[in-house]
Amino acid sequence: MSPKIPASRAEAEALDRADPLAARRSHFRIPEGITYLVGHSLGPATEAALARTRQVAEDEWARGLVRSWNSAGWIDLAARVGDRIAPLIGAPAGEVLVCDSVSVNLFKLAAAALPLAARRRIIVDDDDFPTDRYIAEGLAGLVGADCVMSPPERGVGAVAEGGVLIKSLVHFRSGMVVDMALYEREARRRGSLVVWDLSHAAGIVPVDLAANGARLAAGCTYKYLNGGPGAPAYVFANADIAPRLQTPLPGWLGHAEPFAFAAEYRPASGVGRFTVGTPGILSLAALDGALDAFEGIRPEDLAAKARALGGLCLARAAALGVETRSPSEAAHRGGHVSLAHPEGYAIVRALEERGILADFRTPDTIRFGLSPLFLGYREIWDAMDALGDILAKRAWDRPEFRIRAKVT
Amino acid sequence: MSPKIPASRAEAEALDRADPLAARRSHFRIPEGITYLVGHSLGPATEAALARTRQVAEDEWARGLVRSWNSAGWIDLAARVGDRIAPLIGAPAGEVLVCDSVSVNLFKLAAAALPLAARRRIIVDDDDFPTDRYIAEGLAGLVGADCVMSPPERGVGAVAEGGVLIKSLVHFRSGMVVDMALYEREARRRGSLVVWDLSHAAGIVPVDLAANGARLAAGCTYKYLNGGPGAPAYVFANADIAPRLQTPLPGWLGHAEPFAFAAEYRPASGVGRFTVGTPGILSLAALDGALDAFEGIRPEDLAAKARALGGLCLARAAALGVETRSPSEAAHRGGHVSLAHPEGYAIVRALEERGILADFRTPDTIRFGLSPLFLGYREIWDAMDALGDILAKRAWDRPEFRIRAKVT
Repeated sequence: MSPKIPASRAEAEALDRADPLAARRSHFRIPEGITYLVGHSLGPATEAALARTRQVAEDEWARGLVRSWNSAGWIDLAARVGDRIAPLIGAPAGEVLVCDSVSVNLFKLAAAALPLAARRRIIVDDDDFPTDRYIAEGLAGLVGADCVMSPPERGVGAVAEGGVLIKSLVHFRSGMVVDMALYEREARRRGSLVVWDLSHAAGIVPVDLAANGARLAAGCTYKYLNGGPGAPAYVFANADIAPRLQTPLPGWLGHAEPFAFAAEYRPASGVGRFTVGTPGILSLAALDGALDAFEGIRPEDLAAKARALGGLCLARAAALGVETRSPSEAAHRGGHVSLAHPEGYAIVRALEERGILADFRTPDTIRFGLSPLFLGYREIWDAMDALGDILAKRAWDRPEFRIRAKVT
Repeated sequence: MSPKIPASRAEAEALDRADPLAARRSHFRIPEGITYLVGHSLGPATEAALARTRQVAEDEWARGLVRSWNSAGWIDLAARVGDRIAPLIGAPAGEVLVCDSVSVNLFKLAAAALPLAARRRIIVDDDDFPTDRYIAEGLAGLVGADCVMSPPERGVGAVAEGGVLIKSLVHFRSGMVVDMALYEREARRRGSLVVWDLSHAAGIVPVDLAANGARLAAGCTYKYLNGGPGAPAYVFANADIAPRLQTPLPGWLGHAEPFAFAAEYRPASGVGRFTVGTPGILSLAALDGALDAFEGIRPEDLAAKARALGGLCLARAAALGVETRSPSEAAHRGGHVSLAHPEGYAIVRALEERGILADFRTPDTIRFGLSPLFLGYREIWDAMDALGDILAKRAWDRPEFRIRAKVT
């Protein structure tokens, strides 16, 4: 069923009043006057994440000192936070571990999967997120495997290569979602393994790893999961396959008994073997706090609202004559939508001047992230009004709006 | 010159009064009644690290949101914090980058160094820290190189293998320091490259990477640098060799122009190419604050005091009839000393009951870390009195002191 798209500001307000997620806005500390459409890039802070950060620094570190590895449970924190992410991506407890960055985790999983694939081959769509492509090429070069850059229009046909496919569930530009179950069925038929990149999917669309037969995945926590800038990523390896996986990065803390300081490396059971070094406890604790905002929330409800808000953006953009680059069918979309405009960068700067934060992807893509836990329908309605006004008045046409920042 | 070892509590107090580092104690927030001898494992919090953590969370993240990548300089923070670590390890600015964990960084450097060595061979002492050994073996297996476990008594002879040697400058158990210049001279003669693990060295002994001709190093920041639990590690690659190094982990943020989202991977110049994914900004900011305590301090002065404190521990332990496992010559020691006792674990627990935190390494090693920025001579004198009392009264001989915690 397509989500309800409001046709007026009054209808948008009515949808806000009926919105079961509206109360979650109070979890977030978003500055007054800001409409935050960049949750797909960096989620905003929640009060609980900030409180947990104070607690880990002031109580656990400063007061507890090294004793907190035991007394505050730091040693298990990466697994416990993984267990809190698990229901958001349809994974059983015990199959998700928080560690390292997405890039490092894709490397670990793809390297570990390679001996299990029909062919020594790493496959990646040639328009997937840069890290996915670079890591695929880098790993293939390092271990002497083939690297296949698959044209995106080939779609699920990429798994016919019989290797390890690194694949984003939600595309970083268009927000398009692919059919995980279809890929997994085809992968099994072809002797391929898929390493899913859930970075733009977790916390915003139902991922259903177990139900779709997914075996390996990694993802980011600083986007829709609001874990904080550069918050650690996670890995998922299902319990059947995990014991057969040899990590290419056997750090001491992924040892079955790290404090035995044994001569022989013996991996921890299950996904725990993908632990490498000591986790960044401050960043991990902030993420732990951030996940409080998801307690009792079903991914389906997040997706329904995000898609309704995205549909509203796309409908109004079309009415403004702005080109859209995201699937019009809601079920094919993740949590962000993309518009295209040759002056996209300057338009994003003009929006920012009005307190509306969006982002830009070169050469011409404006992205609006529709985080359903803190955004409302009327807020999006008003943001699209502002976009219309900026376009009508050419308010973007100022030299200072064309000066590119380091991070765009 | 051997450091002055006090022969009485009064002499210890006199040394405290004359100690130019004594004033730094006020930088640290150490709970009342604690003698903290575990700075070699987890450094304590400084007021500046705690303040910087509040700032990054409450101001930069919560208020600045995604804009802080530019406005708060997050995008350069890993390089700027690297520049602050550089003088502590004798590296020029621009050759040190903060990123990932020690394990991941050893992997990156050893993999990148392999094509430059005379032989495709990874060498590691068979009593070095577990991660160094496991990563050496894991990498060798992954890329089809030889792995040579060198007996520690072979010492610098290990570089005769003509490969990449991963080597701790300060040994994690004994605290023994090796002669970096000698290793580097021999390595050049034999076509070897050394990847130095500075984890137990940085912030406590003069490392002098540039003066000793070191080319590659990685190290930990949560020990003597007090960066916080699991604070990110660093990599050093000297400017001559860096352009020839190909990272095995080409993450998108190590690209020369990450926001071009280019199809081809083109590494950032110099050590910046070892960036992988998005840095954990909260943890990185805490480390940034922690480094304030080192402003204006010379590594030589840190080492002189740490060695004097270590000499005091060893002299008093010998007088108590406790076996010592660290070099008696001060210049051969890092910042910690090791004692051996069959009841070492229970003794560490008995010390903890008296507010003296030390640590234990299986099977029988008691380690005392002598962080010179916050410890004093009389404090160590009193801690050794307490050890003597515990031994004399067999105060360690309680069943609850033998129950091992998860982290020892």
